[in-house]
Amino acid sequence: VRTVHAHTGAAELGPYRHYMQKEIFEQARALGDTLEGITNIMPELFGDKAYRVFQEIDNVLILACGTSYYAGMTAKYWIESIAKIPVNVEIASEYRYRDSVPNPKSLVVTISQSGETADTLAALKHARELGMPHSLTICNVSTSAMVRECELAYITRAGVEVGVASTKAFTTQLAALFLLALTLAQSKGRLSETQEQDHIKALRHLPVAITAVLALEPQIIAWADEFARKENALFLGRGLHYPIALEGALKLKEISYIHAEAYPAGELKHGPLALVTKDMPVVTVAPNDTLIEKLKSNMQEVRARGGELYVFADADSRITPSEGVHVIRLPEHYGMLSPILHTVPLQLLAYHTALARGTDVDKPRNLAKSVTVE
Amino acid sequence: VRTVHAHTGAAELGPYRHYMQKEIFEQARALGDTLEGITNIMPELFGDKAYRVFQEIDNVLILACGTSYYAGMTAKYWIESIAKIPVNVEIASEYRYRDSVPNPKSLVVTISQSGETADTLAALKHARELGMPHSLTICNVSTSAMVRECELAYITRAGVEVGVASTKAFTTQLAALFLLALTLAQSKGRLSETQEQDHIKALRHLPVAITAVLALEPQIIAWADEFARKENALFLGRGLHYPIALEGALKLKEISYIHAEAYPAGELKHGPLALVTKDMPVVTVAPNDTLIEKLKSNMQEVRARGGELYVFADADSRITPSEGVHVIRLPEHYGMLSPILHTVPLQLLAYHTALARGTDVDKPRNLAKSVTVE
Repeated sequence: VRTVHAHTGAAELGPYRHYMQKEIFEQARALGDTLEGITNIMPELFGDKAYRVFQEIDNVLILACGTSYYAGMTAKYWIESIAKIPVNVEIASEYRYRDSVPNPKSLVVTISQSGETADTLAALKHARELGMPHSLTICNVSTSAMVRECELAYITRAGVEVGVASTKAFTTQLAALFLLALTLAQSKGRLSETQEQDHIKALRHLPVAITAVLALEPQIIAWADEFARKENALFLGRGLHYPIALEGALKLKEISYIHAEAYPAGELKHGPLALVTKDMPVVTVAPNDTLIEKLKSNMQEVRARGGELYVFADADSRITPSEGVHVIRLPEHYGMLSPILHTVPLQLLAYHTALARGTDVDKPRNLAKSVTVE
Repeated sequence: VRTVHAHTGAAELGPYRHYMQKEIFEQARALGDTLEGITNIMPELFGDKAYRVFQEIDNVLILACGTSYYAGMTAKYWIESIAKIPVNVEIASEYRYRDSVPNPKSLVVTISQSGETADTLAALKHARELGMPHSLTICNVSTSAMVRECELAYITRAGVEVGVASTKAFTTQLAALFLLALTLAQSKGRLSETQEQDHIKALRHLPVAITAVLALEPQIIAWADEFARKENALFLGRGLHYPIALEGALKLKEISYIHAEAYPAGELKHGPLALVTKDMPVVTVAPNDTLIEKLKSNMQEVRARGGELYVFADADSRITPSEGVHVIRLPEHYGMLSPILHTVPLQLLAYHTALARGTDVDKPRNLAKSVTVE
């Protein structure tokens, strides 16, 4: 009798030390697959009934937990900006238990990697019982309870995600949510053909762009060696990049056990600035957008208090390294898709910091991959 | 020549060591003054034009920063539950710079102790430029720019607040926002006379109830001695008490420089649980409401990972102290007003922890009282 372990997992790791690292590096492929074959925006991307549903709704209610909630927060910025439809984003475990005011013309959007997240499923059911019949899910598992429960769906093609800390599931959720923003804009007559083709072109470029960002790994490893000696960190972002700062802090928390917390940069002066010392590194997500000048002034406040800044800039940011200001520059400026690209170096920073601290990266203490209990 | 320092401040401190402590203990008086003479709910509490304005609006948009933002988050729960009017709460520094979808039937509510907070003033102006003419402010300074700029106002009577960390300004904001929830409910025909009188009675009881909570100080001092030796803390709450957990964490951060972070308890399993060890005290705001059983299960998760729990329960909570589970019980169950009462022990915990650490309580490093710059 010969026992064959045909699928031990280890074999699948290839050149990578952990699934998380492998999954970070798979993101070009995962995004390519998730967006495969999309040459035009049309409601049917989300299901046969989508055309009719999108005509009927005038509001979006996003329900999610954890990392998926941060994807939802990013989507709020996109949908309100591009489609001009108001969006509410709620933490599923909060929404399901509170008194809220239902809008029957809401599109209820759930986001869940596994499609089995207990609180998100319960929140969806709660919304339906309140009289909101229209639902759509962004989900990575086509056979999941969530996909069965929702009227419409977009299946991300991240592939199986083994690492407990979500990486490729998050960036593919973002890509799907950006498609949703475009499709809702089109349904409401707010997307010209030129805009549509420009956005599609930018989406097609994502895999190549991600690959170039992944090439920053050696610079990020150098930062990770510094971070590994810290016990606390602040992450700052503004606008579209505030949820990305939240996600970056969550990654670091989950796998390195460093107490990282994110703030919208404008809130710094209303409290967290009191925490800033040389022992509290401050990570700043600083692409060149309309908020860059404001962000720079927040950064000066941090420097004035002795804080060390670690800045993720982009090609256009015009931030130069100086005493206490470390800069890693992403190779391009990514416009509206910038949150997807800026996620990647934050994943790598968390990964390499955890590696340097010797934690169990793929199975961080106390956490489960899918939270299928309440 | 004799120089007389007639108004050194120290003279006003009376038996207190710091303005913050004095201001915490002034809350019974501040709430009494803020609610003085209110025997009935009527729109005119908010200004002459309020009746007409409240008839016209179908939505509330709250704009604020820092502690005032947490007051706004609490108000969302109250207004949606009591008045059944949908509420959005936005961080002023985020709102003013992002693309949003204006609703001309929104009542724009700003919250600011000083009435001079630069981002909140700018956000109000931005909302008006987007076509939202109706505005109301909850403010502690009747001569402020904010009161001049807004159509309607409720002036809290907290009195001058000297400590940088807001205390009595916050609880009086909450009282004013609760009045707003009741008044909006009445305007929409959703407040019976019996309900009105029950709520007024509960509001009248606030000063007495607060005084009883302040009497818990010796128990809280014992906890503060433990907290003073920690560098990190988690604060958990659910529903109405999630913003209170946020405010409790902010207070501790601001004056003790302990890195305290709050989470809605249901999000614990989606990441922050990885941080929990015996060195990370977990403060839980646990009044007896519909969420208490859920919260207890979150607490068990913390205990299972060796975390020490510090629970603020109320008279009805049925949580008993045990190994690693410390309980301070507030003397009553406060129903909808519970967030106001549960704020007080968290203020005292922050104050006494800072005192034990020897920080400059009234002027924490890096912070200013009113953030009148962007």
